[in-house]
Amino acid sequence: MTSARTLPQAYFVSPEVFAREQEQIFAQQWLCVGHESQILDRGQFFLQEVASESLVILRDSGAVRGFYNVCRHRGTRLCEEKSGQLHETLQCPYHAWTYSLDGRLVGAPHMDKVEGFDKRDYSLHAVPMALWEGFIFVNLAKNPTPLEKMFAPLAGKFTHWNLPKLRSAKRIEYDVQANWKLIFENYSECYHCPLVHPALSKLTPYDSAENDLCEGPFLGGFMPITKGQSLTLSGNACALPVGDMKTEDHHRVFYYSIFPNMLLSMHPDYVMVHQIWPQSPMCSLILCDWFFHPDAFS
Amino acid sequence: MTSARTLPQAYFVSPEVFAREQEQIFAQQWLCVGHESQILDRGQFFLQEVASESLVILRDSGAVRGFYNVCRHRGTRLCEEKSGQLHETLQCPYHAWTYSLDGRLVGAPHMDKVEGFDKRDYSLHAVPMALWEGFIFVNLAKNPTPLEKMFAPLAGKFTHWNLPKLRSAKRIEYDVQANWKLIFENYSECYHCPLVHPALSKLTPYDSAENDLCEGPFLGGFMPITKGQSLTLSGNACALPVGDMKTEDHHRVFYYSIFPNMLLSMHPDYVMVHQIWPQSPMCSLILCDWFFHPDAFS
Amino acid sequence: MTSARTLPQAYFVSPEVFAREQEQIFAQQWLCVGHESQILDRGQFFLQEVASESLVILRDSGAVRGFYNVCRHRGTRLCEEKSGQLHETLQCPYHAWTYSLDGRLVGAPHMDKVEGFDKRDYSLHAVPMALWEGFIFVNLAKNPTPLEKMFAPLAGKFTHWNLPKLRSAKRIEYDVQANWKLIFENYSECYHCPLVHPALSKLTPYDSAENDLCEGPFLGGFMPITKGQSLTLSGNACALPVGDMKTEDHHRVFYYSIFPNMLLSMHPDYVMVHQIWPQSPMCSLILCDWFFHPDAFS
Repeated sequence: MTSARTLPQAYFVSPEVFAREQEQIFAQQWLCVGHESQILDRGQFFLQEVASESLVILRDSGAVRGFYNVCRHRGTRLCEEKSGQLHETLQCPYHAWTYSLDGRLVGAPHMDKVEGFDKRDYSLHAVPMALWEGFIFVNLAKNPTPLEKMFAPLAGKFTHWNLPKLRSAKRIEYDVQANWKLIFENYSECYHCPLVHPALSKLTPYDSAENDLCEGPFLGGFMPITKGQSLTLSGNACALPVGDMKTEDHHRVFYYSIFPNMLLSMHPDYVMVHQIWPQSPMCSLILCDWFFHPDAFS
Repeated sequence: MTSARTLPQAYFVSPEVFAREQEQIFAQQWLCVGHESQILDRGQFFLQEVASESLVILRDSGAVRGFYNVCRHRGTRLCEEKSGQLHETLQCPYHAWTYSLDGRLVGAPHMDKVEGFDKRDYSLHAVPMALWEGFIFVNLAKNPTPLEKMFAPLAGKFTHWNLPKLRSAKRIEYDVQANWKLIFENYSECYHCPLVHPALSKLTPYDSAENDLCEGPFLGGFMPITKGQSLTLSGNACALPVGDMKTEDHHRVFYYSIFPNMLLSMHPDYVMVHQIWPQSPMCSLILCDWFFHPDAFS
Repeated sequence: MTSARTLPQAYFVSPEVFAREQEQIFAQQWLCVGHESQILDRGQFFLQEVASESLVILRDSGAVRGFYNVCRHRGTRLCEEKSGQLHETLQCPYHAWTYSLDGRLVGAPHMDKVEGFDKRDYSLHAVPMALWEGFIFVNLAKNPTPLEKMFAPLAGKFTHWNLPKLRSAKRIEYDVQANWKLIFENYSECYHCPLVHPALSKLTPYDSAENDLCEGPFLGGFMPITKGQSLTLSGNACALPVGDMKTEDHHRVFYYSIFPNMLLSMHPDYVMVHQIWPQSPMCSLILCDWFFHPDAFS
């Protein structure tokens, strides 16, 4: 890429550019909001803010569902807690309109007296949702391209990593005072590693990366682990292998960016996932999970 | 109202809508800023911010007056304290221009040397002001409809409540993280009462309200007090009756909303007034006073 | 000035006016950013934010230089500390691109492999800079009028004040909650002195000022010191005379405003300089230095 140039300054600081990105990228693309292991029991839920909309993601009988967290009556937030356990229904705290876990309005006090009112017209607004390797994706577009089509370049690629079965042992949340694109791009280059991560550079030489995926809104590949078996502080593997990987993959770390908000780091013994949530032109919220083989928890 | 619908989301969150409301509603309508009992003595004053303008409301000999809190010389704030006692004049703290309590410029050091300068051209800008049942209203419009005309539907309606003579025993101020319209509308419906105010619903059944006023920018009526004599925590009256009410009114609570910023709650033994001051699309400042019969203070 | 009027309110509160002033005044005019005595040693530097751009001002061999504090590679801030001592180079903390003190790119790891890449195309962007009587001025305009031409009305006027040799004994920084223009104009009038500075008015009568400079974007003159010899709290001179002034100047204080951001107060025994840095329509950062004769420090 002899003629590549950094974007002009405005792309990293302008509120207008930020607003357009929210509208044209974050409200249009498939976004990772978590992993289905977060909501294994019926009625478990968590909230996620996407492009200024609050979404509630929950487990119904078997299915994972997503709704706008907005009562159809007066626009009140249905859930205020960031995560928790629902008991059969979502009830609006204002006027007690009540919804089943599949979004149907099942209770609306006194509304039966209102001529022409039909509960079936007031189901919660569902948000398009899809699962990919156990990760939950949502899309705020009216008619999004199906995730299966968008993610075709990834089909089957990660099957042996066992991703749907993994469970998060730890999540941390933190703000980074930087534009989301800088964080996203920074993940895909190791040119900065010698100065910024000298210890890491000893375990995986910074000039050893090979991309094996650059089709669609995806980019990534692997780097060899040349010293020790893992990128833990000790250099030793910290848990069971996450999946049934090929021999050579036991000495590799795989880094993939899934545009626009997911960074997937697959190590032999754990999988690290970063979600990037832009807050303002110069601030981004990061959710970072460490996933392990379910048997590693016992 | 079979086809009533909640306003779209933008009306509750958009800075543009908020700015238009400030300009076209709060800078055009009569707004309650307080009660004349707050400034009984000559020279007593308080400040009120209205649509980004600071106003000073004061008691001159007999009259209540209101001025833009802005020196005519260099635009300096005349008063910085929220309330207090003036001594004959308002003096600008910057260059000592001095105004009488009726707004006339009476001192302007050295300006007599400036050719063509006439103190009479530099009186404080008065704000249109009117009293209604003891409450002080201002209007930032250039040529507002007289308050008497706007408030015609209320003429004589509250005379026996003795409102001009009452005095506030207590004021509290607090922010509510909600759009001002939601607060205003919430006051006029008791559909939310069973879930949100279960104790109140026992004293005044939530489905017992009758509107007796819905003409002009006013809405309200009464609810019977079915248990006890008052809406105090004990259920007992907490003070003398506020006025010379009819017998049946001793077991009623009256709720009126006076668009756009006054909520008037009249109980047999006290009158509660909320002023709503929008601060931003999703934040409103509330001033809440409890008024009692003046003899209840001794 | 019989018909002078204060600017309309919007000029002091409007974000749009503020943005235009930043663009058309602060990004176009010569601005004082400090004094060369702040960076006497090779490699000493300080940062200054000007119209939302971060600048690094440094001492190279002999010369004072100014650069945009932005790496030519990925736009990273080169220096984060507000001031300090560089060791031969500026190195970007991200990917280690390295610049000499005259702005040339001297190190860019691996870039020699990139076809067509020439270090000479990636020098730091210099900012136009000039010295006036020891004070450092920058100008963000593409082709600014030379400072010598702009400052012609000042030529030779202050020579005997010895300004280039003075050194700052003390700097304070503080915010003022006021529009920058009010601060700038306030400096040029003493009409406010009797009420605001009664003690000062005793030392230098507020109606005694004479302007001796009103050509170009400059305004000022002197006031006699009628009691004591200095404007210190005691009224006594606090240090050696700053320069070789005329006899009558030992009883005068000189005030000059240098549009748009420098206020220069010359006393017999010290020179006070205020820099005004607008932060928002209603907030300004002030940097205030007290300069003394270098021999006064020993």
